[in-house]
Amino acid sequence: MPHPDVLDKLVSLAKRRGFVFQSSEIYGGAGSVWDYGPLGVELKNNIKARWWNAMVRQRDDVEGLDAAILMHPRVWEASGHVAGFTDPLVDCKACKARFRADKLQDAQCPRKPSKRPGEHADCQLTEPRQFNLMFKTFMGPVEDSASVVYLRPETAQGIFVNFLNVQQATRQKVPFGIAQIGKAFRNEITPGNFTFRTREFEQMEMQFFVEPGTDMAWFEKWKAWRREWHLGLGLDDDRLQFHQHDERELAHYARAAFDIEFDFGGSLGFQEIEGVHNRSDFDLTQHQKFSGKRLEYVDQAANKRYVPYVIETSVGADRVTLAALVNAYREEAVAGEQEGRTVLRLHPAIAPITAGVFPLTRKDGQPDMAERLAADLRKRFPVFYDDAGAIGRRYRRQDEAGTPFGITIDGDSTTNDDVTIRFRDDLRQIRVASGQVADVIADYLASDKPTAEVPRT
Amino acid sequence: MPHPDVLDKLVSLAKRRGFVFQSSEIYGGAGSVWDYGPLGVELKNNIKARWWNAMVRQRDDVEGLDAAILMHPRVWEASGHVAGFTDPLVDCKACKARFRADKLQDAQCPRKPSKRPGEHADCQLTEPRQFNLMFKTFMGPVEDSASVVYLRPETAQGIFVNFLNVQQATRQKVPFGIAQIGKAFRNEITPGNFTFRTREFEQMEMQFFVEPGTDMAWFEKWKAWRREWHLGLGLDDDRLQFHQHDERELAHYARAAFDIEFDFGGSLGFQEIEGVHNRSDFDLTQHQKFSGKRLEYVDQAANKRYVPYVIETSVGADRVTLAALVNAYREEAVAGEQEGRTVLRLHPAIAPITAGVFPLTRKDGQPDMAERLAADLRKRFPVFYDDAGAIGRRYRRQDEAGTPFGITIDGDSTTNDDVTIRFRDDLRQIRVASGQVADVIADYLASDKPTAEVPRT
Repeated sequence: MPHPDVLDKLVSLAKRRGFVFQSSEIYGGAGSVWDYGPLGVELKNNIKARWWNAMVRQRDDVEGLDAAILMHPRVWEASGHVAGFTDPLVDCKACKARFRADKLQDAQCPRKPSKRPGEHADCQLTEPRQFNLMFKTFMGPVEDSASVVYLRPETAQGIFVNFLNVQQATRQKVPFGIAQIGKAFRNEITPGNFTFRTREFEQMEMQFFVEPGTDMAWFEKWKAWRREWHLGLGLDDDRLQFHQHDERELAHYARAAFDIEFDFGGSLGFQEIEGVHNRSDFDLTQHQKFSGKRLEYVDQAANKRYVPYVIETSVGADRVTLAALVNAYREEAVAGEQEGRTVLRLHPAIAPITAGVFPLTRKDGQPDMAERLAADLRKRFPVFYDDAGAIGRRYRRQDEAGTPFGITIDGDSTTNDDVTIRFRDDLRQIRVASGQVADVIADYLASDKPTAEVPRT
Repeated sequence: MPHPDVLDKLVSLAKRRGFVFQSSEIYGGAGSVWDYGPLGVELKNNIKARWWNAMVRQRDDVEGLDAAILMHPRVWEASGHVAGFTDPLVDCKACKARFRADKLQDAQCPRKPSKRPGEHADCQLTEPRQFNLMFKTFMGPVEDSASVVYLRPETAQGIFVNFLNVQQATRQKVPFGIAQIGKAFRNEITPGNFTFRTREFEQMEMQFFVEPGTDMAWFEKWKAWRREWHLGLGLDDDRLQFHQHDERELAHYARAAFDIEFDFGGSLGFQEIEGVHNRSDFDLTQHQKFSGKRLEYVDQAANKRYVPYVIETSVGADRVTLAALVNAYREEAVAGEQEGRTVLRLHPAIAPITAGVFPLTRKDGQPDMAERLAADLRKRFPVFYDDAGAIGRRYRRQDEAGTPFGITIDGDSTTNDDVTIRFRDDLRQIRVASGQVADVIADYLASDKPTAEVPRT
């Protein structure tokens, strides 16, 4: 059964609840750039922290890095981006509009929208020319060719140029990896689909350096590990698939490449959220050539030296955040209630708020007790205190925020010190002593279950 | 007693141990841009996480945000950056060199380095003209004035333009704040002093929205809280001072401004690491004017509406990271040893590695036991396993990395299960059962003591 298209509903929920806002919205927005609001920044940070923990902190063979966005311009000559990171564009000399040459059939003539560019009588299309997708700027006071720098279109090159710096500082032996999280920029001609394709985005990349000949075995390992990571984040098994790059898709230097695709539902369907690539020794060899510096690994034990091969795993942080939201989105009927609910069944470990704390009423000392409990829980995880409106509405607001636990303080609580924990996914309610709430929730988080084992609607 | 200049020594240690590398070093470097290596990224991330926790997670009156670097260009007209964020430059028509007009006395004539620009016979200096410090680029395929966008020179404007989005999504009531961490860019003519003044840098900013008339009381609160935060990070009390902006320094819209300055030692001395500003209602009023959208807060309880005043706290994440390194750097004599040691006395909570684990020798099962212990500890904090070289050298390497605890497994350990914990700062050693190491270290971290109470050398 195909998954429904929930993207428009998510855009609306994302703004209403503060996950994602359009950048510079009061000025009509900046083109396909988005800001993460209070809930969105926590969700994305939790996902980034989970990746860093799995890739760097829990492994002794991967080192972290945080390279700058601005790099020496020769980097992008060596990488091939100056010459080849382009889209073909055509201009119309009559109306000055510009189009992607390979997407003319989807475009409209600005003067005659019912026609395609070139089909209207006035159209004067030029031959296609290559348009580079890197954002260009100038460093220093003089705007000339000597001062051109680019906003990096990928984080990977920051790792390649630091290969020996990292290896020597850490004394790592091949095989080992370098991982980093950071912004990258591409001047896309046709961005879109909310935060899926944007001009400013964040990558989580890892380059794993191996001895030539051992590369395909490592490639298979990383391919399996990376799929497991997405499952651990709560993405459904049936929404994940591998897409193997065939010969036409494969870069000339690549020995093998698989995309990990997630089913975003509707017409968008399966789309890449991560790439796993065997890049051979292409990048280090190119940087050797362009920099004149040796980038070899010296294996002292085996008395040999070589340029390592690279297995790359490259995740779009914004895409996997969007996938987590799409995967979690549900509209459900609620037994005994006329109105249904919208709920985000986010994995408890990445939910922006772990627990909502609610006094049932604003009297009889309930708010005091609830605020004390909220302050206590806040030392261990993010908590939201809410005493405004009917309790049902407060539950619904936290359902939409993806908050996995709701703690309610009622009239009995102020006398017997018991409170109710409500579970977001199956609406189960249990009564526990207020002093035990933190441990109950911590135990649940430690079990690291993606979602409660309840039927889907 | 003035603090010594340790910056050159730090640059060398930072590269050697993997805290900070020059960006694109194999290409001769990119101008005043730096990359954080494996230890540096952990240190900086720990500092950022500590700020986020104190400013957002532990407070119920501050919301998080992660706004994009690229914004609508009108934002920078409203903020005043397009017109006023400039340095005065003069050109020499004879040699084509360019200089800061207000720093001519520190510059050299390129043709006659013993002279200042203008003092050599050939010099033909133009009148000063204003040079804008924002990096400019073009969004979309056409490079014309309509597609100009800027790399943000500060994160603050992302918060101002989202003021109502955040307030409405979270239903916060004034007074409340919005906080974010992110990159900003300034095309400085004279960057320098390692990572102190760079063209690409990271800010940790918080804007706190208050009712006019209550602003100076909130200003004083934040000024005190922010100083406390730097002390909690382990920065020494005598290296921190407030610098009050006098009338000439104060921006025309500001009601009050204090810098928090740290003494970097040597000739650099006290320099700003954070600014605390009362910005009045200037920013929101400007964005109202330029966007045509109302940016008022509606106080329903009091039945009034107003444009809030803003108290801003703005930290340079790179500067406070550098301050933490400078503050921690020591060269010490070690009793009973001929060679001294270099040690980073970093606060244990921000140290990149919490514990080093060392088998005394590579035989008798010591490496096995040590690796098991390291894997176990790694679940709770960052651990480095090292079995290479003499134990003294391994201790020294971790001293330079700022690792607060060293765990040594020796011949007795494999029989009685006891191991030695060595404390970085006072070199104290205690014997504990291997199963208790994690809890002993966790207790120490939970006490959140900046550094051990031992005499300074």
